[in-house]
Amino acid sequence: MLSSYYEDLNAGDRWVSRGRTITEADIVMFAAFSGDWYQLHTDREWAAKTPFGQRIAHGLLVLSVSSGLWDLAGGTVIAFYGMDNVRFTAPTFIGDTIHAELEVLEKRDKGPNRGLVKIKQEIKNQNGKTVMTAMLQLLIKKKN
Amino acid sequence: MLSSYYEDLNAGDRWVSRGRTITEADIVMFAAFSGDWYQLHTDREWAAKTPFGQRIAHGLLVLSVSSGLWDLAGGTVIAFYGMDNVRFTAPTFIGDTIHAELEVLEKRDKGPNRGLVKIKQEIKNQNGKTVMTAMLQLLIKKKN
Amino acid sequence: MLSSYYEDLNAGDRWVSRGRTITEADIVMFAAFSGDWYQLHTDREWAAKTPFGQRIAHGLLVLSVSSGLWDLAGGTVIAFYGMDNVRFTAPTFIGDTIHAELEVLEKRDKGPNRGLVKIKQEIKNQNGKTVMTAMLQLLIKKKN
Amino acid sequence: MLSSYYEDLNAGDRWVSRGRTITEADIVMFAAFSGDWYQLHTDREWAAKTPFGQRIAHGLLVLSVSSGLWDLAGGTVIAFYGMDNVRFTAPTFIGDTIHAELEVLEKRDKGPNRGLVKIKQEIKNQNGKTVMTAMLQLLIKKKN
Amino acid sequence: MLSSYYEDLNAGDRWVSRGRTITEADIVMFAAFSGDWYQLHTDREWAAKTPFGQRIAHGLLVLSVSSGLWDLAGGTVIAFYGMDNVRFTAPTFIGDTIHAELEVLEKRDKGPNRGLVKIKQEIKNQNGKTVMTAMLQLLIKKKN
Amino acid sequence: MLSSYYEDLNAGDRWVSRGRTITEADIVMFAAFSGDWYQLHTDREWAAKTPFGQRIAHGLLVLSVSSGLWDLAGGTVIAFYGMDNVRFTAPTFIGDTIHAELEVLEKRDKGPNRGLVKIKQEIKNQNGKTVMTAMLQLLIKKKN
Repeated sequence: MLSSYYEDLNAGDRWVSRGRTITEADIVMFAAFSGDWYQLHTDREWAAKTPFGQRIAHGLLVLSVSSGLWDLAGGTVIAFYGMDNVRFTAPTFIGDTIHAELEVLEKRDKGPNRGLVKIKQEIKNQNGKTVMTAMLQLLIKKKN
Repeated sequence: MLSSYYEDLNAGDRWVSRGRTITEADIVMFAAFSGDWYQLHTDREWAAKTPFGQRIAHGLLVLSVSSGLWDLAGGTVIAFYGMDNVRFTAPTFIGDTIHAELEVLEKRDKGPNRGLVKIKQEIKNQNGKTVMTAMLQLLIKKKN
Repeated sequence: MLSSYYEDLNAGDRWVSRGRTITEADIVMFAAFSGDWYQLHTDREWAAKTPFGQRIAHGLLVLSVSSGLWDLAGGTVIAFYGMDNVRFTAPTFIGDTIHAELEVLEKRDKGPNRGLVKIKQEIKNQNGKTVMTAMLQLLIKKKN
Repeated sequence: MLSSYYEDLNAGDRWVSRGRTITEADIVMFAAFSGDWYQLHTDREWAAKTPFGQRIAHGLLVLSVSSGLWDLAGGTVIAFYGMDNVRFTAPTFIGDTIHAELEVLEKRDKGPNRGLVKIKQEIKNQNGKTVMTAMLQLLIKKKN
Repeated sequence: MLSSYYEDLNAGDRWVSRGRTITEADIVMFAAFSGDWYQLHTDREWAAKTPFGQRIAHGLLVLSVSSGLWDLAGGTVIAFYGMDNVRFTAPTFIGDTIHAELEVLEKRDKGPNRGLVKIKQEIKNQNGKTVMTAMLQLLIKKKN
Repeated sequence: MLSSYYEDLNAGDRWVSRGRTITEADIVMFAAFSGDWYQLHTDREWAAKTPFGQRIAHGLLVLSVSSGLWDLAGGTVIAFYGMDNVRFTAPTFIGDTIHAELEVLEKRDKGPNRGLVKIKQEIKNQNGKTVMTAMLQLLIKKKN
């Protein structure tokens, strides 16, 4: 979907991504890359004493992974404008498999060669449970 | 700041983080981890033809790195509730050094052992330019 | 192209991928992952004394990176059968940007739900020079 | 073996490498590095429905790892000329331990200071099953 | 503790770090980064036949991880002078959670703006067993 | 050298390793893995104001990398007993190429199937300057 030009994106368009299993290695690598070693993600003993009962993936890990599930290779995105209503609604545990569901909410013309597109993203796990929602805004190229 | 208990966080509290230089290696590693190989971040020839003139860091890289600059080791964060008004306001180029500036905007009691704290985050580069802003919401423990 | 079903792949079909810049970080990460720290890839002083005059990317790095440029998300590949005539024809230096060009050479029926497809791959750099060629064989699903 | 000079390599020479266990982390790291997130390697739910019944390592992961099992530190390899008859003959599952067995097939003089050596590589797992075969060709230095 | 100035560090001061679970991914990543693929760390079959009965973390992995548990963000460390009596006293297995306990042993003035501080480090696992000890020496800034 | 059995190691034996160039990517990866983001290693602006004038590699990075330069594949090391007199004697800058020089200092019998070997390690850069020294102690297998 995000490979398309502005003219080809319309409110109501929907797209479902492939899935990706979130492994213990992913959590370690994200802790390492981000520098966020919060114990809920990286200390098995500590996490066992929380209501989650185990380590969970970082919210920003889930968000980062979702960006790799978008279909960007077309080269039509000018810039990532921003996000609103980002909510982490359920934990992602080691071994869960998540995918992204995108829906165009609205689009707004921004001149002769670009427009702003608002997209609702839901990340769901293998049980269909929504673990994250967000409203993305991207600047997309027009055809000419 | 994010090592504190709910009672010790008050509107107007401010905190400035250490800095981290964003290297070419960071961009490659984030592309790899996230799976987002969008050409603006990973193809030097392609990026040279955009208005940026060169590869730029992923917005979610900047956001992810910022989480490692927060001060979380105290173990007082119960959950990352969400974000609003996330805006990517300027590019981060290879070699730029970014840091986070946090300010408590407001807090709201959520029962006997927790509260919700809203924090404004600004990410600035070595020239003082703001490259990202966001309003974070976290659930924070009370002292008992 | 590699997202297609067997019936939709035909001799002569061609596809050109996006590009990816090969960075010093890529060479370090591939040396680390593979365990191949051969000095031509990882010792700047040693490499300076070879005919290449500098470090070059591992041949298998170029081959591995090419697989990420194929378009596999459709889920139609049953198995990677093998490769022939893999030739490393020119060095890839730090900072070069490579892309893949694929062409279906032939296909062969392998029963009611699969077929073998032979694909010629050329990896070219930003100057159009071919740095690697290979003949890939993949088992591809039929539509039913 | 690949630490030797051309004169010291002869048809029939055999060498067996140490082993390396292929972990879930290896598969995630190779998917990330290569950009090949094909679901057979990275989506546990999807892979469970294939004849393999679970995620398997990428063929190019196995090939890349094998290069780290070769004994290259001698600095006698001038270039990796190419490969033929690369065949992925059995799956490598998470937790399998693989090693390389190399045998010199033939060698061919290429002038006063180098020669081409053809080597058969078999990668076997902990049960002795061959998971990959290939015929490697390398340009090797002569002693002077 | 290591965020403090020289004047604020005194013999007998003690500090206990957060914990970090050592995963299989950590061992693979350290093997990759360091290039130390010794079979005791990376070959499950080989390690099963040693007195340890399984793979163990590299000693230098444990030491490297401990440095991330120190509290360095204050920017008061001028240089890492050295270590003595580094002893690896028990194995760290996959899944163990380690933390650091530091105690200032002595300090020595080194001029108007710095001093040398000797610190005893013990790394303990989730059962309270000491897996590594070391005596660290760091050059620390004075306040002016 | 460290591939040898106890009987074959004798005081005065010397061995020189291959080299490895320490890149900016290595420093970022070690900061990430270890969790040690001290500004001297990861903040270009901050490091520019120190006597070093630029970012330098972590001491433990140099030590960790050295272990990958040892020759361990023989499988004769029983355990890494410890280290003494570890001293970081000069900085390693981005782009420096380091190698290890080992010398057996003494050995001590520890029963019918093992002995302790003390080895002096010097890490030198491309200019021959010693950047780290250490005295390593390893438990090594006897031939039977």
